Amino acid sequence: MKTALKPLEIYSLVAPDLERVEEELASYASSPIEPVAVIARHLLGAGGKRVRPALLLLTSRMLGAVPPAAIRLGAVVELIHNATLVHDDVIDGSDTRRGRPSANAHWGNPMTVLAGDWLYMQSFAVALGERNFDVLSTLVDITRKMVEGELLQLTLVGRSDVTEDQLLDIADRKTASLFAGCVRLPAIVAGRTPAEADRYALIGRSLGMAFQLVDDLLDLTSTEEALGKPTASDLRDGKVTLPVYYALAGGSDPARSRVERVLLERDFRSVSPEEIVDSVRDADGVGRPRKPAALDLPGRDLEHSRIHPQQAGVTTDGRDAGTGPQYRSRIG
Amino acid sequence: MKTALKPLEIYSLVAPDLERVEEELASYASSPIEPVAVIARHLLGAGGKRVRPALLLLTSRMLGAVPPAAIRLGAVVELIHNATLVHDDVIDGSDTRRGRPSANAHWGNPMTVLAGDWLYMQSFAVALGERNFDVLSTLVDITRKMVEGELLQLTLVGRSDVTEDQLLDIADRKTASLFAGCVRLPAIVAGRTPAEADRYALIGRSLGMAFQLVDDLLDLTSTEEALGKPTASDLRDGKVTLPVYYALAGGSDPARSRVERVLLERDFRSVSPEEIVDSVRDADGVGRPRKPAALDLPGRDLEHSRIHPQQAGVTTDGRDAGTGPQYRSRIG
Repeated sequence: MKTALKPLEIYSLVAPDLERVEEELASYASSPIEPVAVIARHLLGAGGKRVRPALLLLTSRMLGAVPPAAIRLGAVVELIHNATLVHDDVIDGSDTRRGRPSANAHWGNPMTVLAGDWLYMQSFAVALGERNFDVLSTLVDITRKMVEGELLQLTLVGRSDVTEDQLLDIADRKTASLFAGCVRLPAIVAGRTPAEADRYALIGRSLGMAFQLVDDLLDLTSTEEALGKPTASDLRDGKVTLPVYYALAGGSDPARSRVERVLLERDFRSVSPEEIVDSVRDADGVGRPRKPAALDLPGRDLEHSRIHPQQAGVTTDGRDAGTGPQYRSRIG
Repeated sequence: MKTALKPLEIYSLVAPDLERVEEELASYASSPIEPVAVIARHLLGAGGKRVRPALLLLTSRMLGAVPPAAIRLGAVVELIHNATLVHDDVIDGSDTRRGRPSANAHWGNPMTVLAGDWLYMQSFAVALGERNFDVLSTLVDITRKMVEGELLQLTLVGRSDVTEDQLLDIADRKTASLFAGCVRLPAIVAGRTPAEADRYALIGRSLGMAFQLVDDLLDLTSTEEALGKPTASDLRDGKVTLPVYYALAGGSDPARSRVERVLLERDFRSVSPEEIVDSVRDADGVGRPRKPAALDLPGRDLEHSRIHPQQAGVTTDGRDAGTGPQYRSRIG
């Protein structure tokens, strides 16, 4: 078995392609309307990890080559991701994003709402250039799902009676659906059938779920410096994430009331972030979401099938297992 | 020459088709996410004049028949219109819309931003069903233009140094572009060439400019009861419209300072709405935009050609002139 690659090594596999995505992105941030161009440049120039374009490009390379369409679609998924971030910032009233003032803090909510709208329209306009209905409906479906996920999350803000199913559904819509698209789109472009593309999409979806779960953990366990925003800001915003859910559901009574206190105060006034992290650890809320078995999404009907860890190319002990048997024949 | 039809008589020409559009709209207001469905039903059930679907259906009938695609696209343009209204309400902080609490007053800004996003995505998802790239790019282009128009307007809020060109550009983007689409789309569906569809679109664009100019006038001259919102709310919101522009540009010094006072105070505190209306009347700000000659858009390069009143089927004395010669041959 090969040694697993480190993140930077994975990125390096598609570094020149990512450069081309950056050029595409810069070219899309143009508008005859000056304020639009200024905001778009600010947003798209803000960096970020470009995880989604990287996943799309890696898939494209796995399938044989990186055609110009994959470069453009890499830019499109990043545009859509940024549009959702911009509206999320308005919704959360966030002051910072990636360590810089957020768009709403910079330009105010009205301008930021419109900037998000503009990014959505620009992304669809670029995608339309591919003249491929499957590409377009993949993107529109994903975007609708992401909006629905954010809406669902909003209805649960401040509530401690959320269920595991609800949290997994939100992660699926908000994060995993776009990751699935990042694997589905290059499969379509490479001429795979819709059914094949759907199977590929499952890999992306599993990666997306894993990404979101790790993101939720980092919100609790990382530092403000590393995150570019305060630690435990999800809970401060009234959002119970999966690790915190385990502290609520399986934790002690004091653990439960600590979480509820923060949800009530919407701040770490009478409870410290460290106490919450301790409660989460006591309920194994850090370990449980890390286990890929969590991806077997108990009690939920996924649209196509249940996701099994093996399909996502990971073993239950967390080691890289290569690709599942149904993909091995094609990409081996 | 035939007598001009009254508005209700025009609507009656497509009344059964409009009923079908209502049914389509109701069916689109469904989502597995309960809060989405509730908001969508509230928004789409709020009524409104359905001017855009009516224009699309009338054009469709003029071209021969109203196919199912025209019914669906009638619903799509109304969805897009509602999406922009919902985001406009967030931007303006409006409390009422069509005499009812606005979505943002009802559900708060975060939920309303997302509801608008959802309506956009739903409209594109429905439009995708037509499997027609020209239909899709017409809709995406229009929506981007509308967002850009709203952004432009936002940069001019509170400013008295706006130009006539800027105001016409905003009206063109925010209103006339969707009206143009309501005439272009049925032409595409009826199998006209893109060049022919562009010429038809000019009719809709002229109608849209006229509609916006009359809307600006009504904001000043109508009653709160008839408008469903306070009189002169544009100026109260810091927005100079074309009639008010004439009071600024061609009016007396006292007229100018009255307008500037309201823009500064963002309220009718030391100046009454009636004084503003008087200033507008003195500068012929009511009469000038009513003249269809105003549609000859001085000093602006339109993308395809200048709009001449005759193309829009109106004479400079305001009477119905039938259709212009270039359309007469086809529809006569």
